[in-house]
Amino acid sequence: MHYADRLEAALEAVGHPCLIGIDPHLDALPEEFAIARDPKAPRSERARALGDFGCAVVELFAGRVAAVKPQSAFFELFGADGALAWERTVRAARAAGLIVIGDVKRGDIDSTARAYAHGLLEGAHACDAVTVNPLLGEDSITPFLEACARAEAGLYVLVRTSNRGSALFQQHGTPPLYQKIADAVVAWGSASLGACGLSNVGAVVGATHPAELSDLRARMPRTPLLLPGYGAQGAGAAEVAGGFLAGGRGALVNSSRGILFAYRDPRHAGLHWKDAALRALDAMKGEITAALRASAR
Amino acid sequence: MHYADRLEAALEAVGHPCLIGIDPHLDALPEEFAIARDPKAPRSERARALGDFGCAVVELFAGRVAAVKPQSAFFELFGADGALAWERTVRAARAAGLIVIGDVKRGDIDSTARAYAHGLLEGAHACDAVTVNPLLGEDSITPFLEACARAEAGLYVLVRTSNRGSALFQQHGTPPLYQKIADAVVAWGSASLGACGLSNVGAVVGATHPAELSDLRARMPRTPLLLPGYGAQGAGAAEVAGGFLAGGRGALVNSSRGILFAYRDPRHAGLHWKDAALRALDAMKGEITAALRASAR
Repeated sequence: MHYADRLEAALEAVGHPCLIGIDPHLDALPEEFAIARDPKAPRSERARALGDFGCAVVELFAGRVAAVKPQSAFFELFGADGALAWERTVRAARAAGLIVIGDVKRGDIDSTARAYAHGLLEGAHACDAVTVNPLLGEDSITPFLEACARAEAGLYVLVRTSNRGSALFQQHGTPPLYQKIADAVVAWGSASLGACGLSNVGAVVGATHPAELSDLRARMPRTPLLLPGYGAQGAGAAEVAGGFLAGGRGALVNSSRGILFAYRDPRHAGLHWKDAALRALDAMKGEITAALRASAR
Repeated sequence: MHYADRLEAALEAVGHPCLIGIDPHLDALPEEFAIARDPKAPRSERARALGDFGCAVVELFAGRVAAVKPQSAFFELFGADGALAWERTVRAARAAGLIVIGDVKRGDIDSTARAYAHGLLEGAHACDAVTVNPLLGEDSITPFLEACARAEAGLYVLVRTSNRGSALFQQHGTPPLYQKIADAVVAWGSASLGACGLSNVGAVVGATHPAELSDLRARMPRTPLLLPGYGAQGAGAAEVAGGFLAGGRGALVNSSRGILFAYRDPRHAGLHWKDAALRALDAMKGEITAALRASAR
């Protein structure tokens, strides 16, 4: 089934747009995975603990969220052993019925991009979608579009990232670069609309820039958005509301540290990390649902 | 030793600026590595053939070139097995005294970039330098700068890529984005000059844009350049000459397919792939040395 249709159906089933970012920061991992941060432990055991954590997160959230977004960097930290842990996490998530958005931010020229696209979207451990960096231009995106068409997969192109320093290049020029990227995203996705009316070519837009987010939502009316920046990075539910289409459709709101490591928050003192994570998800769901209701009025 | 000093010494020792890109395109691999393109072979065996090829390239060029640039995408195609082949290639190259520039084009925010930088530049299978994508801004580069300082490693920031579609975003605005990125590269590298006068923060500038290359060389007088686009992508020796400092210093000229797969060129018909590759390197050395001499006149 077309990526956007699958995603919309999964969001409908769980009734909220929260996306769990699987970012296994070594320093923040719960105690039972502490071997991952032990520099004296063999790399294979450290990486295995990352995979165990990834699979535990998958098991905890299966049926509770539509999608998860593992972050490749934390797995790559352990090289080939980390890649095994990544594959185990991706496989577990897909087997559990979760949509997997691989946060890899790749971008390279033609034949190189083809190798990335094939490995990430069509291999035995493929993701349902990946994030890509568009700096190299259209010919760096085309191989991903082709792989998406073959594999019924999705893409999220970086348009406006959530970090503080993002303005330096992304706001360069008149109109700002991010608008030009947004227009390209619309063009790249125009040939691949699902039955739900949305494209399989999405965009990453940080919720930390609420005015730009509303503008970009209007500029890309058929583009699924992935909104980072909620929670640990500072954006609240009111800020993300502008990223949605009517009816609360068309966007995923990511939270990584704010959910997975909620057990470190004094408000959840004494809770097991899983219980803290579930409470944090409930709070996030409540806040976002209320903000969407308020913005619909 | 400071990255730029090591690089300049290695270039001095071999007497030419040719960089071998290790891009194991499945379709082009010599027959003895054909299992890599057999979809029915186990992934581990296909990946092992990539590593065998990478190590054979290293053995062939050790002592003959200053540096090699393995391209991560072709290894990642085989997931965790490919990562093992990558690590084997990187280790073999460093053991053979070659400088290893990992072509990974990573770019992500703060803590994520730290994980990439640490894994790629400080791990057991670390590269001497990596390529990075600056679209996310300064806070995405800082963790790499910090890792470079700790590991005496280098960085090559994408400034103007060699592909046809690169103008779409890289030339956006007035001044064009790539100039703004170049100015940032100068600033990021200004605190880390080696004894040779060059920084450990380099730039990737496609030789396929000769006018811009000369302009960027002048704009970044202390920045080591990595020049892709020679050979298979269409740029000749005259085009790359503008990327050098006086005395033929300060730049590496990359060739991947044009060297590794020279055995497929009718001019080298009947030669073993290694002999064809060495002839192609000799031809490239001759052309570039002559062009540098001509431009020095």
